[in-house]
Amino acid sequence: MKKLSYLVTIIGVSLMSVNSFSADVKPAPNGIELPENYKDWKVISQSHRIDNNSLRIIIGNDIAIQAARAHETNPWPAGAVLGKLVWKQKNDEHWNKAIVPDKFIHAEFMFKDSEKYAATGGWGYARWLGLDQKPYGNNEQFTLECFACHTPVKDRDYVYTTPVSLP
Amino acid sequence: MKKLSYLVTIIGVSLMSVNSFSADVKPAPNGIELPENYKDWKVISQSHRIDNNSLRIIIGNDIAIQAARAHETNPWPAGAVLGKLVWKQKNDEHWNKAIVPDKFIHAEFMFKDSEKYAATGGWGYARWLGLDQKPYGNNEQFTLECFACHTPVKDRDYVYTTPVSLP
Repeated sequence: MKKLSYLVTIIGVSLMSVNSFSADVKPAPNGIELPENYKDWKVISQSHRIDNNSLRIIIGNDIAIQAARAHETNPWPAGAVLGKLVWKQKNDEHWNKAIVPDKFIHAEFMFKDSEKYAATGGWGYARWLGLDQKPYGNNEQFTLECFACHTPVKDRDYVYTTPVSLP
Repeated sequence: MKKLSYLVTIIGVSLMSVNSFSADVKPAPNGIELPENYKDWKVISQSHRIDNNSLRIIIGNDIAIQAARAHETNPWPAGAVLGKLVWKQKNDEHWNKAIVPDKFIHAEFMFKDSEKYAATGGWGYARWLGLDQKPYGNNEQFTLECFACHTPVKDRDYVYTTPVSLP
């Protein structure tokens, strides 16, 4: 009976995990797990970084999208998650004056929780590299690197992205 | 009783319309209506057109997304709809080497129906301009302009966009 109960617990925890996070990708060194359905998230904006030749699409979970559409993003609400999908750039083969995504570089995320992530401005950071989704960072100190880069936009709740204007 | 029946029909047609199309935006001159929930569609790709200083996010309805993820896009399946959201570009205020969306220019769509749109390569075209979503084109001949521009990629089922690579 104890064994059965244990098994049921394992199955239960596994199902919970499948519902929220990607079970076959390792968590970041700070324990943050990859949101499972991020590829289905809606668009917040895009960018072209000409300093490192990359293209980016910025997406958000439902809480983030609702906040973006309501223009309530300073601060972003608790539970908002922003994702950035990043590709190397190339010139389009059929329209040379268009810069389009080439090889996938990484997916990175910001998780809003003012208490849990108080030490890094209320955001938890995580990044997974390449198509094999290797967690970025050797230990949890990697978040200080993220935080340092976002500190110049502290008065925008540490977020560079401005949600796009749409009808 | 006839009046009541008429009213019920009007309400019914209105509800049907609300379910699929944006009721308060005028259809394109070829009769194509704006898909109502396009802002919730998922991402297929993005681009930066350096010939006209615009940024674009390419999205798709569920049929298109399923085809893109299955790499079954030549031809795209019946019922696929591709959308392109276009903005003027600007340099980001806080990260000068990032090009980001500025003013919204237009939303444009391709609707796959090999029979209905046989005259234009199996795709119906439509575009709505600006935040007030004015239909593009003075009459239905405008689609010939769209078709001409897409004909160089006839062997890619008339679609320039290649779906992004993602894990």
